[in-house]
Amino acid sequence: MDNLKSLIREVPDFPKPGINFYDITTLLKHPEGLRRTVDALASEFKDMKVDAVIGVEARGFIFAPALAYHLGAGFVPVRKPRKLPAECASISYDLEYGQDTLEIHRDAIGSGHRIVIADDLLATGGTAKAVVDLVEGLGGEVAGLVFVVELEFLLGRQRLAGYDVRSLIKYQS
Amino acid sequence: MDNLKSLIREVPDFPKPGINFYDITTLLKHPEGLRRTVDALASEFKDMKVDAVIGVEARGFIFAPALAYHLGAGFVPVRKPRKLPAECASISYDLEYGQDTLEIHRDAIGSGHRIVIADDLLATGGTAKAVVDLVEGLGGEVAGLVFVVELEFLLGRQRLAGYDVRSLIKYQS
Repeated sequence: MDNLKSLIREVPDFPKPGINFYDITTLLKHPEGLRRTVDALASEFKDMKVDAVIGVEARGFIFAPALAYHLGAGFVPVRKPRKLPAECASISYDLEYGQDTLEIHRDAIGSGHRIVIADDLLATGGTAKAVVDLVEGLGGEVAGLVFVVELEFLLGRQRLAGYDVRSLIKYQS
Repeated sequence: MDNLKSLIREVPDFPKPGINFYDITTLLKHPEGLRRTVDALASEFKDMKVDAVIGVEARGFIFAPALAYHLGAGFVPVRKPRKLPAECASISYDLEYGQDTLEIHRDAIGSGHRIVIADDLLATGGTAKAVVDLVEGLGGEVAGLVFVVELEFLLGRQRLAGYDVRSLIKYQS
């Protein structure tokens, strides 16, 4: 998958000094890069029964619906508070500084539904774990999680131990 | 396209009293509804040369990348301020109350690139017109705009006069 990695731009000191930002917009704007990324995400789950793919606002919305299309599944958004219009389940979780809250429609996931969670980035895994808890709280089953980029040095997989975690492009630092 | 319309949920008094909200999450979670929507968006532009499809944070990210995939184009995000890591062009525009600002990477669009702007909703057209101005300011050419839902009574098309505007599902009130 070295070709895809070459399409990612590294931006030093963004959003703050000392952070090396892996910018996927250079991959997204590249027609062949976009196509190969979506195809690679779909191939991870092509033999599984998947009812819905979840993406988290905002960057998770980029890949999850395209993945859902290719798996013959639905797409379910997880959003920030007060964005979804019907009855929601919500979860609050700790960030490096402060807390964040996410919501999902209660009627979006049925008991026993098999769910894939897709996002552009696996960092510490805090957001992904919060979404796992939302899904399981509604009776859904997490069939797997898939990320375009994984920052392995942040050990997000440890927080997702016991789940089927996939990623396309890995960074060790 | 009546079948797609039947998958949209109407939520009265959201986000505030007197507003009837057309909720597409019920369409998105329906595998066949999602598939048919993406296919219908793509069929609007299947004979055109399109270099990139633009989606605006956050809901515009849902359809634009899938559309780009099907057109063999790239995807370019337009985001809220301070989200994109490289050099940006920005535009401020008036909302019903106050102002909003959007940004795009300067290197995302080249001179003469043919661009489709895709969003879930055409309301007053203010956001869409701001994106048109961003694209043209970078030397791009707006090949067309496509929306899943159009609220015809808000006359967004008038603000986009002269452009090729398509929509899949229309509401008169």
